Amino acid sequence: MKDIIDHIESRRDEYLEELQTFLRIPSISTDSSHRQDMQRAAEYVKEQLDRSGMTAEIVPTDGHPIVYGERVEHEDRPTVLIYGHYDVQPVDPIDLWETSPFEPAIRNDCLFARGSADDKGQVFIHFKSTQAFLQLAGELPLNIKFLVEGEEEIGSPNLQPFVDRNLERLAADSVMISDTTMFSKETPSIAYGLRGLSYLQIDVRGPAQDLHSGSFGGPVANPAFVLSQILASLKDENDRVLVPGFYDRVQELSSEEKEAFASLPFDEEAYLADLGVQKLAGERGYTPLEQLWARPTLEVNGLLSGFTGEGAKTVLPSKAMAKVSMRLVPDQDPEEIEELFESYVMAQAPATVSVKVTTMYGGKPWVASLDHPALKAAANAVEAGFGKRPVFQREGGSIPIVATFQEILGIPTVLMGIGLPDENAHAPNENLYLPHFFNGIKASAYFMAEYGRGVKS
Amino acid sequence: MKDIIDHIESRRDEYLEELQTFLRIPSISTDSSHRQDMQRAAEYVKEQLDRSGMTAEIVPTDGHPIVYGERVEHEDRPTVLIYGHYDVQPVDPIDLWETSPFEPAIRNDCLFARGSADDKGQVFIHFKSTQAFLQLAGELPLNIKFLVEGEEEIGSPNLQPFVDRNLERLAADSVMISDTTMFSKETPSIAYGLRGLSYLQIDVRGPAQDLHSGSFGGPVANPAFVLSQILASLKDENDRVLVPGFYDRVQELSSEEKEAFASLPFDEEAYLADLGVQKLAGERGYTPLEQLWARPTLEVNGLLSGFTGEGAKTVLPSKAMAKVSMRLVPDQDPEEIEELFESYVMAQAPATVSVKVTTMYGGKPWVASLDHPALKAAANAVEAGFGKRPVFQREGGSIPIVATFQEILGIPTVLMGIGLPDENAHAPNENLYLPHFFNGIKASAYFMAEYGRGVKS
Repeated sequence: MKDIIDHIESRRDEYLEELQTFLRIPSISTDSSHRQDMQRAAEYVKEQLDRSGMTAEIVPTDGHPIVYGERVEHEDRPTVLIYGHYDVQPVDPIDLWETSPFEPAIRNDCLFARGSADDKGQVFIHFKSTQAFLQLAGELPLNIKFLVEGEEEIGSPNLQPFVDRNLERLAADSVMISDTTMFSKETPSIAYGLRGLSYLQIDVRGPAQDLHSGSFGGPVANPAFVLSQILASLKDENDRVLVPGFYDRVQELSSEEKEAFASLPFDEEAYLADLGVQKLAGERGYTPLEQLWARPTLEVNGLLSGFTGEGAKTVLPSKAMAKVSMRLVPDQDPEEIEELFESYVMAQAPATVSVKVTTMYGGKPWVASLDHPALKAAANAVEAGFGKRPVFQREGGSIPIVATFQEILGIPTVLMGIGLPDENAHAPNENLYLPHFFNGIKASAYFMAEYGRGVKS
Repeated sequence: MKDIIDHIESRRDEYLEELQTFLRIPSISTDSSHRQDMQRAAEYVKEQLDRSGMTAEIVPTDGHPIVYGERVEHEDRPTVLIYGHYDVQPVDPIDLWETSPFEPAIRNDCLFARGSADDKGQVFIHFKSTQAFLQLAGELPLNIKFLVEGEEEIGSPNLQPFVDRNLERLAADSVMISDTTMFSKETPSIAYGLRGLSYLQIDVRGPAQDLHSGSFGGPVANPAFVLSQILASLKDENDRVLVPGFYDRVQELSSEEKEAFASLPFDEEAYLADLGVQKLAGERGYTPLEQLWARPTLEVNGLLSGFTGEGAKTVLPSKAMAKVSMRLVPDQDPEEIEELFESYVMAQAPATVSVKVTTMYGGKPWVASLDHPALKAAANAVEAGFGKRPVFQREGGSIPIVATFQEILGIPTVLMGIGLPDENAHAPNENLYLPHFFNGIKASAYFMAEYGRGVKS
């Protein structure tokens, strides 16, 4: 392995330069004006896979293309399916970025750019580790399949159909994903659980158009106020979701897992200081890590109504909109939760306005068993790459395809994330801690070497 | 009077053309980028006052200028102070305008443009009536003072200081304002009451920046949800405001006034159909007209937080903002109400976020006695101009300066509005019904003639 690791070490500047080229492509999947950028990003990924020795292709979908590549050269060795995504989140509020989101900049060992952590910088480590093996050994230590999509940030609507159509092609022994964060800069980790998601929009409509709030205020219902009432009715004073049936399928944590969470070095004061908040909130009766990893939540992601500019406008708004999402835990089902949510919201709606609930997207929660060879190999690889034994943790975020891989392909996923909690994914000033980026490339190489030595399951 | 009325009738096209020139100036007082347009609009008003025989000047203030003009030529006749404003509301949502807000267009006898009804088109009737007298008789039938400001839509911050500094100059027997709506197209009216206003902004701040709602949702309070809770806590299920002390100074309606309101031809079905709503709301126990004219209300005028674009973004917003205003009735005091509101909101705020309440502006409610000669002259003038005896009504909107005129100058105001309830003031497609515009010029002339014959009080 030493020559591989030395090779990786010697190529740092080159890797960084290439990653910056990838990050300069504004591949925002939710914004239809970036369609061409999505294509450019897909082409960039295909070029990387070509260089990794894959037989690669750009597969068109009803939305943004999927990039798929594979190299199956060892009948007696395991196959790993490496998943990642080349699309990124929108950049607003743009004025809060210290440097332009698509002009990468390095400050304090961090590379700032939209997608640096989520997920271009993370999927990139596997491009480089495979390229290092290919260049030095002329072959890879195990069979590899790459699946890099462009719709992760909009709920992967075309990924499951692709998986359904390509069951044999995608057959593997495990999935490797680097798209999560480590427990902390000092504590590397492997994640074995993810929350699911139901994302919806509530639209409240009142009068056909905006009215003068003096001339009409009183007898005419105010959609912005009604929306506030509906939203406030969703949780109680203990931050428990009030949608009937919401908790019915929630698995309570085992005492072993509670203990394992409690043993992790969570520093509440540092956490508060990092976030700039005075006091934590969340569902009463659960610790912050339990709230994040093993309890469902309900968040208001956006609000819009009436006059929002500078100054004052005495308007009775015609309409009001909220984006609401719920993070789900095993065994909650997004479709069932969406139905329960819509029924509850519609039951709160007064007859003085009209209310519409639209489901945007959803994904199932997931939790894995810790005794699969791929997880063990990943733990050793992270220890070798980062110089510290990783802890096992769950994740508060959602990667819906993980549950799909388990259900459809019947294989477990290893979440070997190299991001950090303060990476600002989905927020201004997203960044990637560069020492971990380089350690991640090494860890990826160690994983391939160790997992490749294992007998094909 | 016949020659005056004939003269007005013969000048319709010319008046319409001139009004359109006035309306093309985008004098949006709340938007600092329109400062030059404000100056142009003030100059336009001064030119009209010059033509009305006034000694007129543009008076600079700390904000937008006041245009003042006077012609005092009859020692033995009353003096009327005519007040109006040349500023207009913002135009958003701009995409809902059928034609451009500053390019006047006529459809179905209505002139569509921002400011057509509020207030450029209404103050304009007095320019034209005075000009008709001056042209035909070489003098005006009474003493006239014009006070036309450019900050009505932002709470008139510089008007009261101007009044305070010019008490003698502004001395008059009554104030005439055309800046309100008639009861309906078929029922002209004179208004004798106005609601007051307290306009505030609530800002809720959570984490220092937007966070990923999966990675942080749970232990971190969501400012958009907290804002919804605060707003929902402001009114109960009977649409009663829950701010303690809010109703303490509210004068209940006399049974005479209740009966007078009930005798007006309010058509609930037509009202619902006009507004495009299914069912009326409002404080239980009061009729729609009572709710509009004699009961205080609380409205959410605007909401903004997090992601509001197309699609979905899983963000836990850093901040959330609401604009909230309360319409007040005698004897509520805006400053007291603002204090009560702020105390209540701060008491609802959890320690997990920071909440700030900012007062934007306020104005006192007002109600007049019906037996002043100016009100009687106005009722006769409207009957002569519109061919139908007006009813007396109150107004749901606010013109804070009316209470100031009563308090500081000690004189009553006549609200001779020629707008209509569906004029869309403060909304897209604001419009002025042209037959009433021309009737209004005649009514203004009749008022001057009749009120001028009265003995100076």
